[in-house]
Amino acid sequence: MSLNHVHNSLGRAVPAQINGQPAVPFQGLGKYKPAGEKAAPPVRTCADYPADGNKVAADLATALKNAGLRDGMTLSTHHHFRNGDKVGNAVFEAAAALGAKELRWFPSASFPCHAPILEHLENHVIHHIEGSMNGPLGDYCSQGKMRGMGVLRSHGGRWQAVQDGEVHIDIAVIAAPTADAFGNCNGVTGPSACGLLGFALVDSIYADHVIVVTDNLIPFPCIPWQIQGNNVDQVVVMDSIGDPSKIVSGTTQLTRSPDRLLIAEMTARFVREAGIMQDGFSFQAGAGGTALAFAIYLKEMMRESGVKARFIRGGSTKYLVQMLEEGLTDYILDGQTFDLDGVRSMRDNPNHQDTSPFTSYNYHGKGCFASFIDAVVLGATEVDVDFNANVVTHSDGRLLHGIGGWQNCLAGRCVILPIPAVRDRIPVIVDRVTTLCGPGELIDVIVTERGIAINPRRSDLIDAVKGSKLPIRPIQDIKAEIDAMCGGPPAVPKFGEKVVAAIKWVDGTVIDCVRQVG
Amino acid sequence: MSLNHVHNSLGRAVPAQINGQPAVPFQGLGKYKPAGEKAAPPVRTCADYPADGNKVAADLATALKNAGLRDGMTLSTHHHFRNGDKVGNAVFEAAAALGAKELRWFPSASFPCHAPILEHLENHVIHHIEGSMNGPLGDYCSQGKMRGMGVLRSHGGRWQAVQDGEVHIDIAVIAAPTADAFGNCNGVTGPSACGLLGFALVDSIYADHVIVVTDNLIPFPCIPWQIQGNNVDQVVVMDSIGDPSKIVSGTTQLTRSPDRLLIAEMTARFVREAGIMQDGFSFQAGAGGTALAFAIYLKEMMRESGVKARFIRGGSTKYLVQMLEEGLTDYILDGQTFDLDGVRSMRDNPNHQDTSPFTSYNYHGKGCFASFIDAVVLGATEVDVDFNANVVTHSDGRLLHGIGGWQNCLAGRCVILPIPAVRDRIPVIVDRVTTLCGPGELIDVIVTERGIAINPRRSDLIDAVKGSKLPIRPIQDIKAEIDAMCGGPPAVPKFGEKVVAAIKWVDGTVIDCVRQVG
Repeated sequence: MSLNHVHNSLGRAVPAQINGQPAVPFQGLGKYKPAGEKAAPPVRTCADYPADGNKVAADLATALKNAGLRDGMTLSTHHHFRNGDKVGNAVFEAAAALGAKELRWFPSASFPCHAPILEHLENHVIHHIEGSMNGPLGDYCSQGKMRGMGVLRSHGGRWQAVQDGEVHIDIAVIAAPTADAFGNCNGVTGPSACGLLGFALVDSIYADHVIVVTDNLIPFPCIPWQIQGNNVDQVVVMDSIGDPSKIVSGTTQLTRSPDRLLIAEMTARFVREAGIMQDGFSFQAGAGGTALAFAIYLKEMMRESGVKARFIRGGSTKYLVQMLEEGLTDYILDGQTFDLDGVRSMRDNPNHQDTSPFTSYNYHGKGCFASFIDAVVLGATEVDVDFNANVVTHSDGRLLHGIGGWQNCLAGRCVILPIPAVRDRIPVIVDRVTTLCGPGELIDVIVTERGIAINPRRSDLIDAVKGSKLPIRPIQDIKAEIDAMCGGPPAVPKFGEKVVAAIKWVDGTVIDCVRQVG
Repeated sequence: MSLNHVHNSLGRAVPAQINGQPAVPFQGLGKYKPAGEKAAPPVRTCADYPADGNKVAADLATALKNAGLRDGMTLSTHHHFRNGDKVGNAVFEAAAALGAKELRWFPSASFPCHAPILEHLENHVIHHIEGSMNGPLGDYCSQGKMRGMGVLRSHGGRWQAVQDGEVHIDIAVIAAPTADAFGNCNGVTGPSACGLLGFALVDSIYADHVIVVTDNLIPFPCIPWQIQGNNVDQVVVMDSIGDPSKIVSGTTQLTRSPDRLLIAEMTARFVREAGIMQDGFSFQAGAGGTALAFAIYLKEMMRESGVKARFIRGGSTKYLVQMLEEGLTDYILDGQTFDLDGVRSMRDNPNHQDTSPFTSYNYHGKGCFASFIDAVVLGATEVDVDFNANVVTHSDGRLLHGIGGWQNCLAGRCVILPIPAVRDRIPVIVDRVTTLCGPGELIDVIVTERGIAINPRRSDLIDAVKGSKLPIRPIQDIKAEIDAMCGGPPAVPKFGEKVVAAIKWVDGTVIDCVRQVG
């Protein structure tokens, strides 16, 4: 271990500095206590803004110029358009045309559609990316080609970092499906409707300069104003801010794999048999195929038992919307809409509430509701025998996924990971996860097609399912069986010395890092 | 003038210090430019809050103790319950029982129901009040009995003062008609429903410690969450937080006075004949009897002409709600509901949007919509021949009213004051207003039963109504006629030397002050 590294409380060697700034190593759950005050944006005055409320600028380049774009600045975007986003690329095209260099891109996440950003990394328009890098940008980073260190944060961690002043956004660019000339905007209407703009809320509050980009400009007032014009400096109209066919997530296909359906059903049965599924309970299931199948199984069980949830936490899909409309839950509390039924429901149903990472996930607040969701169903690329889990790297070591809300959701009352025991003939339960994104202390149940492992720390859960017919097994037994089947544990990937990305925990400390592959 | 006073740009002698802090004199419209950054509340961590989200404390005294109540602290409350509020008194009863002294009360406004506060002022539990003092508290202050100087701010000025760090709130107590144990709350449901909680939003964001008090605790989530539990420290349940029969404003009675009806009708005609009443326009009318009558006349004219407004700014009443429901406006943008029809409409109609002073009035933001309302109809206790106006003192010099949103609304495109020329046989148009709350530069039209005076600065308006049958007259002519009728201008009240209250402008500078009467 070099002098620039320290071991954190989980035994992971992590960088002591990130891009020249000191970093705090992970110290254990709830151990690191923040000091100081929230970031304080400059006080503005109406005297400097148009009295008629018209903040429209000619185009993105003009707006960036007006905003005082300079080398080394931090520019942010959001990812509610997912793989259909057109604004992230347009921002850096405009910045490149203006001759800007060494920018930091601070997206809430990036997707394969952002491959053109590779060129800006190569030609030094962008110095580095802080934010999830799904696909080609992650691969580029993994190869050690990005000059700065990537920093991966959860959705809540991104709010925390901006709120705490750890990341200062110079210019936020907020793509908005509908906006007025004053800058009020939302995601529920317009040709590029994506549901909500919650990931951009923190940018709108704390950035020095805020530019709203829309392809659907309407007269004031744009209601609902998910982002308030009172935080916005300029508005830019583009022909199209997103590709509607790709805004909807590709991960919302229901699984057809018999193994995964079995896993999903076992997960739902576990929730029922552990006594979690009862009137007034709450759950969260993501948009992956298995999680969707889980929700459908649980819905049937709820219907049979006459159980109604108080709320479901989304990422919403048509399956969750059906539950709301059938009266199986009072509310959906939604962080992002994954399909058009989600968008419609959020627009029309007052019980389908949009949320932001402040409400749901920010660990440096006065609580957040992630900690009182009864059952949370999440994915993972790997888990280890101590229930630690990985969501960002594959077992070959490549950084291909973001954290999303995953770390934040681990605060839930019963955290369940339904995962196949084997992927591409490689065991998923390992001795030591490649990248430790979530501590085993917070992960309660692993459901595989070969059995269910309950974290020994959760004797309450072990007791609750005693006598059930569920195949409860020690995690070591499941692992041994898989290893035998696959011819031993997976090969440990070869890494270079260079740290390509730091993985932050929800409190801003460094829980692990990712090294260059190959 | 004593050494402690300075003349501001309007020639008013104002204190150079307010309660020991330096104060900036008014410098002219748009002249004072703020420097520095917004107030920055401490960073908190979920580790210090209950993971189950239950923040309920036994009672108000316990909550204040938990909050670290100390002598000299600033405690805030809001006035959405108007004269039916029970929480303001309860807070200081509890604080008195705990032995606290020299507190500063920072309400968004106080009402006659707060008369018990007089005792706390007398026995030094409260040092002074900053906020509107309607009725007995204003009278007490006027008599010079309050030890500290009162500070009157507009609704927008209150947001500005807290946001800019000019007023630091130690403990905010937010009365909420419905809340959950996490602190999410709203005003639209429950036995004490008052519509919204917009005046308390700034307190929830910037106060060190936030206590929500409710008489209707429901399971999480309380939706809508007009105030977010993520900003709340504790929740207290009381039997009753407000008297529903008095929550509705007493000022929402339609006038029956023939003179006032005439004034209201002339005001509506002016709006129509000046060409302001056209498709997509906007207007604001308060809850006073004349303003209500104006809205009713305008509604008829809109119906006749087939004109639809884009939005109406409330204080909402059943008359505005009818306009929304009849399709005469797309939206109501509402700052406070004045009757139960307003509450119902805000709860059920997504086009009836609740607002906060941030959205509508904060001058130290990136614009606010007050400046793009087409016609604004307001009251005044006095106006002078330069169109300067007074809303806080009577012509006898007594401080009996708050500023409300009045100063903020002066930013509107056409500001009209429909006022009787004479009140209790005293002329209302004077040579010099007792207290200058709004500069004549911003006041465009005075409508009296004896004629309409247009500010000579507004040649565009003078041209627009040329040829109309409206009785347009120079303001000096109207004044001369009234003076002759009343036997001369009103007597100038006698004041002592002591400044009992400072009047802030929307930018935080001191526009005038009020001296002790008698």
